[in-house]
Amino acid sequence: MGALSDLFGPERVAVVGATDREGSVGRAILTNLQADFDGDVVPINPNRDAVLGLDCYESVASAPPVDLAVVVVPPGIVVDAVREAGEEGVEDVVVITAGFSETGSEGADRERDLIEVAEEYDMNLVGPNSIGIMSTPNGLNATFGPENAEPGSISFMSQSGAFITAVLDWANDHDLGFKDVVSLGNEAVLDETDFIREWGDDPDTDVIIGYLEGIDHGREFIDTAREVAEDTPIVLVKSGRTEAGAQAASSHTGTIAGSEQAYEAGLDQSGVLRVNTVEEMFDYARMLSDQPTPERDDVAVITNAGGPGVMTTDAIGDSRLDLADFSDETLETYGEMLPDEGNIYNPVDVLGDAPAERFREALDIALDDRGVGAAVIVAAPTAVLDFEDLADIVAEARAEHDAPIVAALMGGESTEAAAKKLQDAGVPNYFDPARAIRSIGALSEYRDISERAHEPPREFDVDRGRAREILERVEGRNDNSLGVEAMELLDAYGVPTPEGAVVDSPGEAESVAEGIEGDVVMKIVSPDILHKSDIGGVKVGVETDDVYDAYEDLITRARNYQPDASIIGVQVQEMADLDAGTETIVGLNRDPQFGPMVLFGLGGIFVEVLEDTTVKIAPISEPEAREMIDDIQAAPLLRGARGRTPADLDAVVETLQRLSQLATDFPAILELDVNPLVAGPDGVQAIDLRLTVDNDEL
Amino acid sequence: MGALSDLFGPERVAVVGATDREGSVGRAILTNLQADFDGDVVPINPNRDAVLGLDCYESVASAPPVDLAVVVVPPGIVVDAVREAGEEGVEDVVVITAGFSETGSEGADRERDLIEVAEEYDMNLVGPNSIGIMSTPNGLNATFGPENAEPGSISFMSQSGAFITAVLDWANDHDLGFKDVVSLGNEAVLDETDFIREWGDDPDTDVIIGYLEGIDHGREFIDTAREVAEDTPIVLVKSGRTEAGAQAASSHTGTIAGSEQAYEAGLDQSGVLRVNTVEEMFDYARMLSDQPTPERDDVAVITNAGGPGVMTTDAIGDSRLDLADFSDETLETYGEMLPDEGNIYNPVDVLGDAPAERFREALDIALDDRGVGAAVIVAAPTAVLDFEDLADIVAEARAEHDAPIVAALMGGESTEAAAKKLQDAGVPNYFDPARAIRSIGALSEYRDISERAHEPPREFDVDRGRAREILERVEGRNDNSLGVEAMELLDAYGVPTPEGAVVDSPGEAESVAEGIEGDVVMKIVSPDILHKSDIGGVKVGVETDDVYDAYEDLITRARNYQPDASIIGVQVQEMADLDAGTETIVGLNRDPQFGPMVLFGLGGIFVEVLEDTTVKIAPISEPEAREMIDDIQAAPLLRGARGRTPADLDAVVETLQRLSQLATDFPAILELDVNPLVAGPDGVQAIDLRLTVDNDEL
Repeated sequence: MGALSDLFGPERVAVVGATDREGSVGRAILTNLQADFDGDVVPINPNRDAVLGLDCYESVASAPPVDLAVVVVPPGIVVDAVREAGEEGVEDVVVITAGFSETGSEGADRERDLIEVAEEYDMNLVGPNSIGIMSTPNGLNATFGPENAEPGSISFMSQSGAFITAVLDWANDHDLGFKDVVSLGNEAVLDETDFIREWGDDPDTDVIIGYLEGIDHGREFIDTAREVAEDTPIVLVKSGRTEAGAQAASSHTGTIAGSEQAYEAGLDQSGVLRVNTVEEMFDYARMLSDQPTPERDDVAVITNAGGPGVMTTDAIGDSRLDLADFSDETLETYGEMLPDEGNIYNPVDVLGDAPAERFREALDIALDDRGVGAAVIVAAPTAVLDFEDLADIVAEARAEHDAPIVAALMGGESTEAAAKKLQDAGVPNYFDPARAIRSIGALSEYRDISERAHEPPREFDVDRGRAREILERVEGRNDNSLGVEAMELLDAYGVPTPEGAVVDSPGEAESVAEGIEGDVVMKIVSPDILHKSDIGGVKVGVETDDVYDAYEDLITRARNYQPDASIIGVQVQEMADLDAGTETIVGLNRDPQFGPMVLFGLGGIFVEVLEDTTVKIAPISEPEAREMIDDIQAAPLLRGARGRTPADLDAVVETLQRLSQLATDFPAILELDVNPLVAGPDGVQAIDLRLTVDNDEL
Repeated sequence: MGALSDLFGPERVAVVGATDREGSVGRAILTNLQADFDGDVVPINPNRDAVLGLDCYESVASAPPVDLAVVVVPPGIVVDAVREAGEEGVEDVVVITAGFSETGSEGADRERDLIEVAEEYDMNLVGPNSIGIMSTPNGLNATFGPENAEPGSISFMSQSGAFITAVLDWANDHDLGFKDVVSLGNEAVLDETDFIREWGDDPDTDVIIGYLEGIDHGREFIDTAREVAEDTPIVLVKSGRTEAGAQAASSHTGTIAGSEQAYEAGLDQSGVLRVNTVEEMFDYARMLSDQPTPERDDVAVITNAGGPGVMTTDAIGDSRLDLADFSDETLETYGEMLPDEGNIYNPVDVLGDAPAERFREALDIALDDRGVGAAVIVAAPTAVLDFEDLADIVAEARAEHDAPIVAALMGGESTEAAAKKLQDAGVPNYFDPARAIRSIGALSEYRDISERAHEPPREFDVDRGRAREILERVEGRNDNSLGVEAMELLDAYGVPTPEGAVVDSPGEAESVAEGIEGDVVMKIVSPDILHKSDIGGVKVGVETDDVYDAYEDLITRARNYQPDASIIGVQVQEMADLDAGTETIVGLNRDPQFGPMVLFGLGGIFVEVLEDTTVKIAPISEPEAREMIDDIQAAPLLRGARGRTPADLDAVVETLQRLSQLATDFPAILELDVNPLVAGPDGVQAIDLRLTVDNDEL
């Protein structure tokens, strides 16, 4: 495929299916293209000589050479039209026509044919079922929507066409401009990842925003977005977050949704700024395109009113930001500058009689304090304050200082002219101070994202061959699962397990026990018996001399309990010192979109009652594994809260990485639970295991 | 005091300190009063004959009789001016002048004098340090602010004057009207509770809103607000929520803030709808004044666009509401009505080619379903949809159905005329569907508040005299605290404790042990030794024969550990069967604003690491005690999660109420912790106790 920049920067565009029929999509697109496009527009329609004053051609072949074909013919002839364009060397195609995979099996077949043709001719294909694309630098509006985008530096993609129409209608009314806009449609060929990659390379795109209901190739998305996000912020609404929403999204786009937990992890690992509302999407986008990231999270509040100052401070308390602590020098300067009743501590109260100049002085003092990373001006209307003067002054300060500044001029109509001035200076203004603070929070969050060090996952020296052998043991099982008898799998991947083995005769049991120092634990091993202790299938503290008898007793109990149970044998294991550590759970899982995931949590009530677990998409790096520990609420218990011995966190972190490698190496592992993994002061030990394997993937 | 309705409905108002000096507060108030007030305005100023064309009087005494005096004279003569008004029989006074308790000790003295005068003459006094009051029915604007309120049914109070100015500026631009407005100022006499009471009785006030930084008489506030909220919704911003915010509020208003946990509990028990932003405050107020509460929480979504439908569904998932499940009949009707590609399931997709009429039909079908409690119209701009037609149709539906309806017309300028029409019909319109859903959520929350059954706290038969005797034992202690030796206090209030006693001789220990069946637990009792087990100060499972020696051993250990420790004796107690129950913590605490509070949580890590506790202001009713259990995250453990024996929740609930009564009966108890209270399957038992007592309150 050629670069996507050609898709947005064509010189001649063919509208295949152009018509002048009133109310038709073909006419709407042609009209939109004629409006502002710098290049040529060529209608294609075998039944017309001219359309809307332009010469019309029978086919792409008979027309002058075009770079981009916009296809609006009926669904049944779309594939032929695209093929013809391919034959003529057209590399970029937008298929507007609906009636493909979104409509049922016939449509899905048609979409497969379309993909085949696009691949054959190596085409960049947008859609089908797209409302089109826009690119403001050359005035390209190849959509059938009622609105065109204003020029700007935000590039915007959406899986919902209606969302684009709604957003443009709104954005044009709010002075928000775009570079490129794309309605992704069914994403038969090009998807969100392709556009993120393209816009990451595009010097004219400052911020990427998008509305997505699903992500197709999770791992590719993470890798691409992560790289792009280092320089270009990506702000996304991923809807279908809630169970009901996911169901609605699935019936809307027909895709199988991945789990919200996977999306949350995947988007976080991608460095995407995830927002839930359109308002936040644009607040963030505007701020990220207009202002620098703060060097520190300490915010100065300059206000002429106590109450709004308190509300702003609350908003800072709710956010990732902090209320700045001024230096002694700053306090002294404020002391000299402000009237006696003013407050020199943050939030700085310049008082109700402050004219704009006093705000400016106070703002300069704050921003000269090295302990201040950003500032917010919060102003209530007073008799002496001219909002427009204040706006001029804030705009000047913004130009002179290298820190983010936002404003909350708290009024209605009286603030409008000032707000416009602020906007022109790239300073957002909100009635609500909380929204102003959130927009600084977005800059701070993006600073952390852009500074993230992406370490590659560590590669451990493991015994893959042995692991495969153990996984292959599942072939005889009818439930595709393995239990403790597969503990060697962990051994092969370097996860510590107690000494011992699963045996199928009393003699073997005895000889295993002889090799173990001290008493042993013995457990019945059977895929059919889940609650072993309930039937007396677990014996703790068995002396070596008693092992032979204990073996036979365990087998007898199992037989009595369930005569038809498949019994694999008995596990003979050294006694694990559970008191010496905290029980954790480490698991693997597989998401349809994002692939393998690693799960971590504390055992027992923490997982089952408090649902205090965290997941990340595998493979994970060491810093990511470390973050997983921070992510759980119960983390202080591992660190030694309440007089506990601190657990060996390095060993937990290493185990998470080793299992991440196992999940990546063997796509056949559908689910795996190490429960518990006991984390003691000098290492970890896996006590029990359960996994499910997909035979076909082995 | 007279009714506050006279404060807002005077016939003749005196401005004491009236002047025509440009830029003065006195002139501003007089000008505002002259603008729209239906009654007479009388300037009072000994140095003028006329002010702004009105005859000016030397004093209130020499003027025609007035109902309301607005005082703007310098702080030094405010008290005299108010006294003079009192002498003349003026019952209602607004003191605008600042320079009272907000400025230091001299001002505080002045404020005390002011209170005294107000009490002497039984006056309703607003302020001092207030920007004034407004009441739209008679055009009263006795403030010096730049804006007047538009008429409406919302009454508004604020502890921040600037907040009023800002909000009015904004509200007038957003067609939001008010009945009364009051700037509370320093609340020397009248406070938030007085106005809530007044507006609760006012037939012209539909919704009460307010901005508060503190609440002065917590219990009175709760009792008043609770009663008012049954019929009139109260929506409040209580700022100073965060630690930094509380600090800022305290330096702003000079009040000692209560704890946020107390405010949260108190506002919740009051039935206040607490919001964090101005936007929410007005979204809620508008909705509550214009629309009925929904009979059920199931919402129907009618949309012409898949993506926005999904976002709306997510917003419902985030809220207290549910996506409605349509009846078979409804689905059938939709099947007949909608084109084949439409979605008959909720969210209903009427498709991109839907004209307004199709929305109307779909809306009617949804609202005729008994399973639907409210509806939201979500519409993206399309070629065929006229937003104004849609607005007309939604307004009609609103008039015809008895369920709340909100709209999210997703566009900019193109939606303005329609939004205006909707607003006139009392239907809010937001670009963001999430905001629309939140406003239905407010109605649902208020429905629950208005339906709350307020049971009086149960009165238990307790031994108050004995409790007092035990509390008095603190008199000799230098740390004002008591420990296990005060366990009888719990006994006196009917909270089960293990059999046993604190003794101070080995012989007594033996005789107590003889009276107890089975072995006993013995613990050293000393206010100076906190970690008893660390020094071997606890003996478990002591046989009766060994009790004598054990006593002496415990005393020796304590003496060796800390020779100067004050040793009260040894507790001899029956063995509590801790395995049979779950350790909980029940505590009492005292908030400066709200008074006694009851705390509940699970013991150990739940309190110390997970901070999973809940509080309520005492006294609590039985339903409130029961709610406390529901409020903690770990509640499932008490109910029998993970194969545990369910705890006797009734016994826990009763204990919470008995301790609530103890806290209310004895204001001297500053803090009390029963830790643990073991909750077993057949009751509870308090195992350990610690309390702090205020000697002076005994």
